[in-house]
Amino acid sequence: MTVNEKLDLLRKAMKINDLSAYIVLTSDPHQSEYPAQIWRSREWLTGFTGSAGVAVVTLDHAGIWTDSRYFLQCEMELSGSDFELHKAAQGAPEYVGWLADNLPSGSRVGCDGAMFSVASVRSMRKKFAEKNITLVTDADLMPTVWHDRPTLPTEPIFEHDLAFAGKTRTEKLDLIRQKMAEANADCHLVTTLDDIGWTLNLRGSDVACNPVFIAFMVIEKERCALFVDSSRMPKDLKNTLNTEGVILYRYDSIADFLTQLTDSQTIAVDVNNANFELFNQIKRAQIVETETFSMMMKAVKNEVEQNWIRKVMVKDAVALTKAFRWLNKTLQERTVSEYEMASMIAQFRSDQAHYFGESFDAIVGYKANGAIMHYRPELEKSLQIEPTGILLVDSGGQYADGTTDITRTISLDGKPTDEQRQNFTRVLRGHIALAQLQFPEGTKGLQMDILARQFLWAHGLNYGHGTGHGVGFFMNVHEPPQGFVAVSNARGTTPHEVGMLTSNEPGFYKTGEYGIR
Amino acid sequence: MTVNEKLDLLRKAMKINDLSAYIVLTSDPHQSEYPAQIWRSREWLTGFTGSAGVAVVTLDHAGIWTDSRYFLQCEMELSGSDFELHKAAQGAPEYVGWLADNLPSGSRVGCDGAMFSVASVRSMRKKFAEKNITLVTDADLMPTVWHDRPTLPTEPIFEHDLAFAGKTRTEKLDLIRQKMAEANADCHLVTTLDDIGWTLNLRGSDVACNPVFIAFMVIEKERCALFVDSSRMPKDLKNTLNTEGVILYRYDSIADFLTQLTDSQTIAVDVNNANFELFNQIKRAQIVETETFSMMMKAVKNEVEQNWIRKVMVKDAVALTKAFRWLNKTLQERTVSEYEMASMIAQFRSDQAHYFGESFDAIVGYKANGAIMHYRPELEKSLQIEPTGILLVDSGGQYADGTTDITRTISLDGKPTDEQRQNFTRVLRGHIALAQLQFPEGTKGLQMDILARQFLWAHGLNYGHGTGHGVGFFMNVHEPPQGFVAVSNARGTTPHEVGMLTSNEPGFYKTGEYGIR
Repeated sequence: MTVNEKLDLLRKAMKINDLSAYIVLTSDPHQSEYPAQIWRSREWLTGFTGSAGVAVVTLDHAGIWTDSRYFLQCEMELSGSDFELHKAAQGAPEYVGWLADNLPSGSRVGCDGAMFSVASVRSMRKKFAEKNITLVTDADLMPTVWHDRPTLPTEPIFEHDLAFAGKTRTEKLDLIRQKMAEANADCHLVTTLDDIGWTLNLRGSDVACNPVFIAFMVIEKERCALFVDSSRMPKDLKNTLNTEGVILYRYDSIADFLTQLTDSQTIAVDVNNANFELFNQIKRAQIVETETFSMMMKAVKNEVEQNWIRKVMVKDAVALTKAFRWLNKTLQERTVSEYEMASMIAQFRSDQAHYFGESFDAIVGYKANGAIMHYRPELEKSLQIEPTGILLVDSGGQYADGTTDITRTISLDGKPTDEQRQNFTRVLRGHIALAQLQFPEGTKGLQMDILARQFLWAHGLNYGHGTGHGVGFFMNVHEPPQGFVAVSNARGTTPHEVGMLTSNEPGFYKTGEYGIR
Repeated sequence: MTVNEKLDLLRKAMKINDLSAYIVLTSDPHQSEYPAQIWRSREWLTGFTGSAGVAVVTLDHAGIWTDSRYFLQCEMELSGSDFELHKAAQGAPEYVGWLADNLPSGSRVGCDGAMFSVASVRSMRKKFAEKNITLVTDADLMPTVWHDRPTLPTEPIFEHDLAFAGKTRTEKLDLIRQKMAEANADCHLVTTLDDIGWTLNLRGSDVACNPVFIAFMVIEKERCALFVDSSRMPKDLKNTLNTEGVILYRYDSIADFLTQLTDSQTIAVDVNNANFELFNQIKRAQIVETETFSMMMKAVKNEVEQNWIRKVMVKDAVALTKAFRWLNKTLQERTVSEYEMASMIAQFRSDQAHYFGESFDAIVGYKANGAIMHYRPELEKSLQIEPTGILLVDSGGQYADGTTDITRTISLDGKPTDEQRQNFTRVLRGHIALAQLQFPEGTKGLQMDILARQFLWAHGLNYGHGTGHGVGFFMNVHEPPQGFVAVSNARGTTPHEVGMLTSNEPGFYKTGEYGIR
């Protein structure tokens, strides 16, 4: 099916359901940044493969809202379809305003409420109410239009060795239970996959590059209910979990579990993470709105983790150095495709101890491709790297003893232009200024971000992405809550604490020519 | 009366009114930073003369909440009274939390609602409601305890020359009326004295150092109602105003005016500025909550103002240079008191054209006094400056063609210690980094502030005040909304726009030794 044929099908379903518009997020019931295949409906529908973007289809318009990291890629991938690119700020729900402005009063907008956080449904409804627009959250049209949809992942689930994790699941659960007690909560709903994996010292590979498994969790005072397809766990692990008070339930029984909570119980829910459908299943229990308690514990790496991180950085650098050495040597004989270089980097990493996989799709951007911020080389479309020009390589590894995210930009012939040299220096000076900063407790990423941009700003230049993000420990390479950004979102306004691991990656991009990061 | 005698009197009045606590702000019905004498009840009650601080009196405790700029001064001034210093963050209403934590359920807290903005009453009530505490806003006890209270100022009111202001009052009113139209408002309540003065190109001297006059204003579609003691205006000015549609009313008739607005009228009110008592007088008219429309217009200086500012900086620097030259010379013969130096600076400024007065009480802090951030030398208690050590001078002038705020720190013998030299350099480097910054539109003071602190932070040092504030044009030296600060308040989160005038004054203070700014 072409994208336009899919659009036709969706619009037919919209008409049957009396919907003037339909919203397809890049999301899943766990508010994951990278959803498993079964939930990649936005990608399936539009053909746009970027990791961030929202599709909105009305009866006479089809749009994708994405941010500047993806403008180039999106325009390329949308060409030939009726979808149009709407340029948006990162993370800003500008499509909501667009719908409010463009739909007539009385319109009905449909979506699958399981893909939206409670908070986002609330803010959307507030905006829509001003224009008398109704948001219909139980209108999941994907089953009726997406026929060859993938199924739920069935990859194995395994333990993360305590020698790496540094704290047992019981210790972690106890820390969370302290927070529950402070919030007067009997139980705590956890829907984010990285929080579940971190808390229980369990890992999986249900999402490419993210060592997580699909599950929900409700932590109670004495027990911990884990909703997961447990056929994917070794029997020993199931026994261990049971012994330690982690009770296994079917993944799809979470709704019933929440419904059956009694009105004498209080459940702590993070409305920024819990999906709206699930939240609505809490029929009787008292709800207290809190953050996901493990989020800050996970972000602040313990000493065992910190020690491993220092070591993993060394072996990861060895792998990367070997890859660059291989490239240098090979370029003396033949060209190397971006795709091949990405594969070789992964191969050199895989030689290192405790390697598990890539932490994200490697960005190997040669010359103009380096200016496509989240470029991912493909086998057929890859450029051939020659021993000249600039190559941007942003890649990382998942190891049981840590996660890396490393960018290097190299001049292949050692002869950058003056302009390239100047811009590289500006980016590097920014990186160094941020890296060397000593700052008081409580300082936020929004304050620190400018150090990385100042030398570019001095020449009217900038880059269209954040400067840094939290990095997981054998966990998602993008980890909330902290970061370095120029906007007042959660990433920008979270105070940095001792022990947090945050990337530092300013850049500069000249469309059609080169990228530096 | 001693401070403790005043406290007794206040507590008696509290008991009669069944109040468990009473709050005395440093404020006035116009939310001025520096109130006229009649409203300086916190200073009268406590003896603490700092420009920021809140007194809270319960039946068994008397506290002042102020920020780190005033810790030293406050402790000195409170000594001998029952008042205790509570160290607070700048602008943070921490006393509200203290009252909520320390008063029993069912308590009544009293205050004069005219001293509080609508927004602050709302947030206080929300906090108090959690603890079943009632806020009584019509309990102005000052008339019963403060007998020798000053009266309303009667200083003359005069025109600010169009040659300096750059825009006529009619042009300014029309710009504001455009904003009113966009907000669907028939009229706009303006309570802030600097906005009234700026809009009408009028000035006064009702508040020391601030060329404002006590008034309220309601801008209507065709007319503009000015509530002011007009006996202080020349007859010509009154005629001119009348001709231009500015109708004069008695200052105390504002309440009746607001009450008489009809339910077919819509009034735009800034709840961050309008006082709670006044707000409650709007009985029938529809209220639309907006900002004070002139705030941003006033902050972004027009080209005429910008040109004058550049010139006024030169003549102000001439005055300051003459003062330092005089000091240098005089110190060869005798010591000079801090107070005398402050007077001489004002005198040299007064030789310059269009001088009107000081823009704030000059801070002339010799040696250890330099570490008291808002030190103000007094005639009797002043230190004698000798030709050795460090002198901090922070002073400014009000001229009809602009307002200045200039700090200089000098070594009187040219022999600073290595530590002083290093810290001076760190402060100076911070100043230069911020001064040289080029930044994209929309950048906020919260982001830029770090540039001024980074070199101190690198050595575990910092300063306990913001880095910069907006500066008026022949108007208040502290002018909202923008600034450079390390906190997420309005000053930190307002995007800087082309034409804004903002001070840049990092510092370093070593208690008991010296101050640098």
